[in-house]
Amino acid sequence: MAETSPRKTYDPLPDAIAASDRQAIADFLSEAEPSEAVHAFASLSETERSKLLESVSFEDLASFMGDLHDAHAAQFIEGLPAEQAAAIVGGMPSASQADVISRLPESEAEAILKAMPAGDAHHARRLLAYPHDTAGGLMITEFLSYGDTLTVGDVLDDLRANAEHYRKFEVQYAYVVSNGGQLVGVLQLRDLLLSSPAERVSAVMIHEPLKVRDTAGLEELERFFDHYALLGVPAVDAQGVLVGVVRGVDVEEAAEERSQRSFLKFMGIVGGEELRTMPLKARTLRRLSWLTVNILLNMMAASVIAYHQDTLSAVIALAVFLPIISDMSGCSGNQAVAVSMRELALGVVRPRELWRVLRKEAAVGIVNGIVLGVLLGLVGWLWKGNVMLGVVVASALAINTLVAVCFGGTIPLALRALGQDPALASGPILTTITDMTGFLLVLSIANAVLPWLTLNS
Amino acid sequence: MAETSPRKTYDPLPDAIAASDRQAIADFLSEAEPSEAVHAFASLSETERSKLLESVSFEDLASFMGDLHDAHAAQFIEGLPAEQAAAIVGGMPSASQADVISRLPESEAEAILKAMPAGDAHHARRLLAYPHDTAGGLMITEFLSYGDTLTVGDVLDDLRANAEHYRKFEVQYAYVVSNGGQLVGVLQLRDLLLSSPAERVSAVMIHEPLKVRDTAGLEELERFFDHYALLGVPAVDAQGVLVGVVRGVDVEEAAEERSQRSFLKFMGIVGGEELRTMPLKARTLRRLSWLTVNILLNMMAASVIAYHQDTLSAVIALAVFLPIISDMSGCSGNQAVAVSMRELALGVVRPRELWRVLRKEAAVGIVNGIVLGVLLGLVGWLWKGNVMLGVVVASALAINTLVAVCFGGTIPLALRALGQDPALASGPILTTITDMTGFLLVLSIANAVLPWLTLNS
Repeated sequence: MAETSPRKTYDPLPDAIAASDRQAIADFLSEAEPSEAVHAFASLSETERSKLLESVSFEDLASFMGDLHDAHAAQFIEGLPAEQAAAIVGGMPSASQADVISRLPESEAEAILKAMPAGDAHHARRLLAYPHDTAGGLMITEFLSYGDTLTVGDVLDDLRANAEHYRKFEVQYAYVVSNGGQLVGVLQLRDLLLSSPAERVSAVMIHEPLKVRDTAGLEELERFFDHYALLGVPAVDAQGVLVGVVRGVDVEEAAEERSQRSFLKFMGIVGGEELRTMPLKARTLRRLSWLTVNILLNMMAASVIAYHQDTLSAVIALAVFLPIISDMSGCSGNQAVAVSMRELALGVVRPRELWRVLRKEAAVGIVNGIVLGVLLGLVGWLWKGNVMLGVVVASALAINTLVAVCFGGTIPLALRALGQDPALASGPILTTITDMTGFLLVLSIANAVLPWLTLNS
Repeated sequence: MAETSPRKTYDPLPDAIAASDRQAIADFLSEAEPSEAVHAFASLSETERSKLLESVSFEDLASFMGDLHDAHAAQFIEGLPAEQAAAIVGGMPSASQADVISRLPESEAEAILKAMPAGDAHHARRLLAYPHDTAGGLMITEFLSYGDTLTVGDVLDDLRANAEHYRKFEVQYAYVVSNGGQLVGVLQLRDLLLSSPAERVSAVMIHEPLKVRDTAGLEELERFFDHYALLGVPAVDAQGVLVGVVRGVDVEEAAEERSQRSFLKFMGIVGGEELRTMPLKARTLRRLSWLTVNILLNMMAASVIAYHQDTLSAVIALAVFLPIISDMSGCSGNQAVAVSMRELALGVVRPRELWRVLRKEAAVGIVNGIVLGVLLGLVGWLWKGNVMLGVVVASALAINTLVAVCFGGTIPLALRALGQDPALASGPILTTITDMTGFLLVLSIANAVLPWLTLNS
């Protein structure tokens, strides 16, 4: 079969791998833009990936993997001998190490940690102990800290001596810690400029600095950076010991990741992640786990139709309208779900304010229900020349639109109030309810006016 | 009617407004956490909002509005006399001013700009000229820049003299510009520490610094910050003149906003934004604009059922399965849509790689189609005791699942390749196709085996 579309940009990596051209591979890995690297990696077959592994140094691989998405990086080293994997992981930036290891099966992660140098492994284990979306899981551990008994001159000497090393730290502050490691102050590099070298840092530093607990969650961190226009904040443990620095940019990036995961979950990707480079079995199983729940819920809803089969037999035209009413109610309800999820994310609504949301949605539901109902009713009337058919579908869709937006607006709040993730369950719960009520409305209203419906059909 | 759930946290603002207690209002505005402020504002009625406006100073309001979501802030000042609005907007941070003004109707925005001090208005107009998600729209304009003929000592003197003012700038670098304002270098504050005051900044600065064009889009900026672990990057215009600094944290925040908008659009919220504080008319019109397109597409799809009405009359049990097959195909297709949108966002797939995605999805579609088809087929068989009914619904769902994932995976890529936004159109296009093919499959397969279907019904 022919390639339907040419590769837009020429990917040199597969050719270099096929030719076992070590130099060309190394050149690509070191020179490719991150977006090129990500795309090239995702396009490789399993065979090409293992050949790649044999053809390059671990350092080149580690730097290349730093550009990849964590899930891709984990996928790449999964199944490698622990020593190889440890060598690659060890070459990655410290913040990425724990992220990648956490995506591996537990036994494999343990084997890699055992194969890493003791210090690195200890460090990685400490970061692994934190849940992903907490200050501890997001923080960087490369920061400047100085004892509170040092002088400004001591700090300047250290900065001068290690300028090259510190350059990559990208932090604007140095932290001052007590003998026991407790955070006691923050030094602005700027203030060092203006102070006498003989002064103690404790005299120059900002006392009682802003800080967060290492266990602080993503929402708390977002609120922090919304409130304070800072680039980073020190994170401390229960004893007040400085353990890392959380950067605003990493918090925003984690929030973006969470939005993307939430979208995927809403669309039925359990776990919030699927990449097409994952094995077929994993992809089908994850998708099926959600689909089978849905098909059972669908059957439950459709049993309403089965129950009213006689009405449907008498007025077969109704069968045309059932999927329309099911789908349109789902659409209206999903709009309300989306607005509630957005308002929850922004904090403008709280999980227990069901009543406020209900009133707001009911107003929209009444207007939209009437408009859509009239539209569908006209089609029903004109199609069969039976005004009562129009009345049946119009009233069913109007009422069900109201039902759909009321449930759609409140389900995410209720799930959140119950401590559940609204992204995964809102959709199936909503459509099951609106399908059942929609089918019930069409068929029971039709049943009530059956003599008029069968007049000229 | 009684409040179904008590307010979780006590909001003092409505009470203070009701009592016209200026002091309590001012206290709340200055002391509330941003999340409290956002929530309190969203909970106010129109009347409460206008009373709030009369009871506080513009400075208090401006600082409070800085905490609000741009859409809320815009909503608040919309309809105010231009002078009042200009006074409030003028007190907001410069980066927020343009964001808020851009959300107002054009005539009102123009009136506010005219009522602002000339310098501020000129500045806001320059930022307004940039599209929202570009370097120009995201950049801050508070940065340190020095002429290239100055000395290190001059810079240190300026830093000392304005230390208090610069403290809030939160930038780690100072920029060096030529006589014409062109960016020629970057000064690390750290390097100033290590240099003799008599040296020229041009001798100390980093030459040919990294920079972006003011017109650079969000994706280019994301790639930039993925590649370089920097806190910010200078933005220059076509002449190379330094016009602002784009901070990584703002780029990540814009990416998160875009994800949220994309989710809302996918769920049928045209424009990607709706807050329940917006007027009912605006909310219903936006939602209806999408719903009416959908109901027309739905009618088109359902016309397939109308066309095969005789088959349906003969085997009324099929009417139970039509909505199930429509809904399940939509679910399967949406999973593929979600993965494609995710892979597009990550850059692991490119819009023209339809063929690669098609192969990957077809494999999933075959497996999932068989599993779901067998499941539904068994139900069909057992329910009516007619094996052929089972065969019809099983084969229709199996084939349509394959159709759904193939279209679902490729529609977002095709829309992107055509320069369209996949978020808004993917859903309606997908479900229209899968509904039509699903109905057609059920009814035409049933028609082909009609004698066996009507044996014992």
